[in-house]
Amino acid sequence: MSDRPYILVTNDDGIHAKGLAELIEVMRLFGDIAVIAPEVAMSGMSNAITADKPLRAVKLSEEPGIAIYKCNGTPVDCVKLGFNHILERAPDYVVSGINHGANSSISVIYSGTMGAAIEGCLHGVPSVGISLLDFQPDADFGKAKIYTARIFQALLENELPRFTCLNVNIPKGIPKGIKICRQARGKWMEEYDKRTDPHNRNYFWLTGSFMNFEENATDTDLYALEKNYVSIVPVKVDMTCYDTLEELKSWKF
Amino acid sequence: MSDRPYILVTNDDGIHAKGLAELIEVMRLFGDIAVIAPEVAMSGMSNAITADKPLRAVKLSEEPGIAIYKCNGTPVDCVKLGFNHILERAPDYVVSGINHGANSSISVIYSGTMGAAIEGCLHGVPSVGISLLDFQPDADFGKAKIYTARIFQALLENELPRFTCLNVNIPKGIPKGIKICRQARGKWMEEYDKRTDPHNRNYFWLTGSFMNFEENATDTDLYALEKNYVSIVPVKVDMTCYDTLEELKSWKF
Repeated sequence: MSDRPYILVTNDDGIHAKGLAELIEVMRLFGDIAVIAPEVAMSGMSNAITADKPLRAVKLSEEPGIAIYKCNGTPVDCVKLGFNHILERAPDYVVSGINHGANSSISVIYSGTMGAAIEGCLHGVPSVGISLLDFQPDADFGKAKIYTARIFQALLENELPRFTCLNVNIPKGIPKGIKICRQARGKWMEEYDKRTDPHNRNYFWLTGSFMNFEENATDTDLYALEKNYVSIVPVKVDMTCYDTLEELKSWKF
Repeated sequence: MSDRPYILVTNDDGIHAKGLAELIEVMRLFGDIAVIAPEVAMSGMSNAITADKPLRAVKLSEEPGIAIYKCNGTPVDCVKLGFNHILERAPDYVVSGINHGANSSISVIYSGTMGAAIEGCLHGVPSVGISLLDFQPDADFGKAKIYTARIFQALLENELPRFTCLNVNIPKGIPKGIKICRQARGKWMEEYDKRTDPHNRNYFWLTGSFMNFEENATDTDLYALEKNYVSIVPVKVDMTCYDTLEELKSWKF
């Protein structure tokens, strides 16, 4: 094994997604890579883990500097299996994406792309999830790849605090630059398309529109993206609401 | 509809879990309830949402003060469908559980029980996820029910900040009381049992042991549970690592 950085690459759109192929091209510039990606699309899988069925990871190809595996689990399963069994040594970095579609604001908690990045930083290595604001399967990743390279280079040159990862979102077209942001407060509204099947039973498709609760804030990821900047939000795995701790202690139970 | 609180009850162990039946008994003391629970076990589903298949919710029963639905989605799908379509009005509270097994420390990010509670608070209503540290299908929920009632009563009498929910973990046996805690730092180790199938192919079962990174800390959920207290961690949906924001701004990209 070479002394180049060893990088675990994964995603949530699955092994066949264009965004993964584009990310592989970028990451090969920086190091030796192992790709472990879901065999089917796993969008919206969040930090889900698979406990109720056996997991498999099958090597699809291997050549100097790159090995590719598909896995029948979630993005988090891919990362966990990578660290625990599949890879010959623990990777130095985990990079997840490039996702087809945004993972800004509250979408970070639903995102399989970010689930994998969060899992990476839980294993103690610098990790980043990258998303392009274009849902199309044939999206143009040209500028996204350049920004991915710039951001990964910065990750190499700096020290990301432990148990922290980066949530990177890249606007379509030609970004104006990079903004470091906090996660905007917002939520999804009117989330389902209700239909009736031929047997007269209702069913629902997930859909909906996003509401930004902080339209006047200028330090959020949604603001940066709206202004055509790449947003980077540092994400941590501690969900504690520290502001509420003292108040809760005053409650009578 | 009565003027009692209207409570959405869900879980991740599925509609047939004992913990759900026990929670229903408790919540009926406090209000009118709607149960929307996954038709199959959905442990470890985190905040996962279902976008790639049609969702259904089927009413199993209805009598004054209680309606019960099963849903073919995740815990978060159950909550979203409840707010958007299934319920006649938005519930006043979301309560998720009682989970068979712990959701302390980092498990909060994998937990479907907590996924549902987090989704509840995203819809602007006070929400709580409750877990008993007993994986057995026939676990004894006696004391857990009493603490659930105490905690829900406190939730009625106090104001939980918006976009915050409670992660409640209850030890087995007779708890000594309640402690307000922060999420302990820790991780799962050696996470898979590797086996070989009759066709000589490897597969993996999720397993592993938990490592507490802060064994000397006395303000964490793991400490409280170890000392036989019920732990309550306030959880928020903002994943931003604010401590890292300024540092990141100094990076050269």
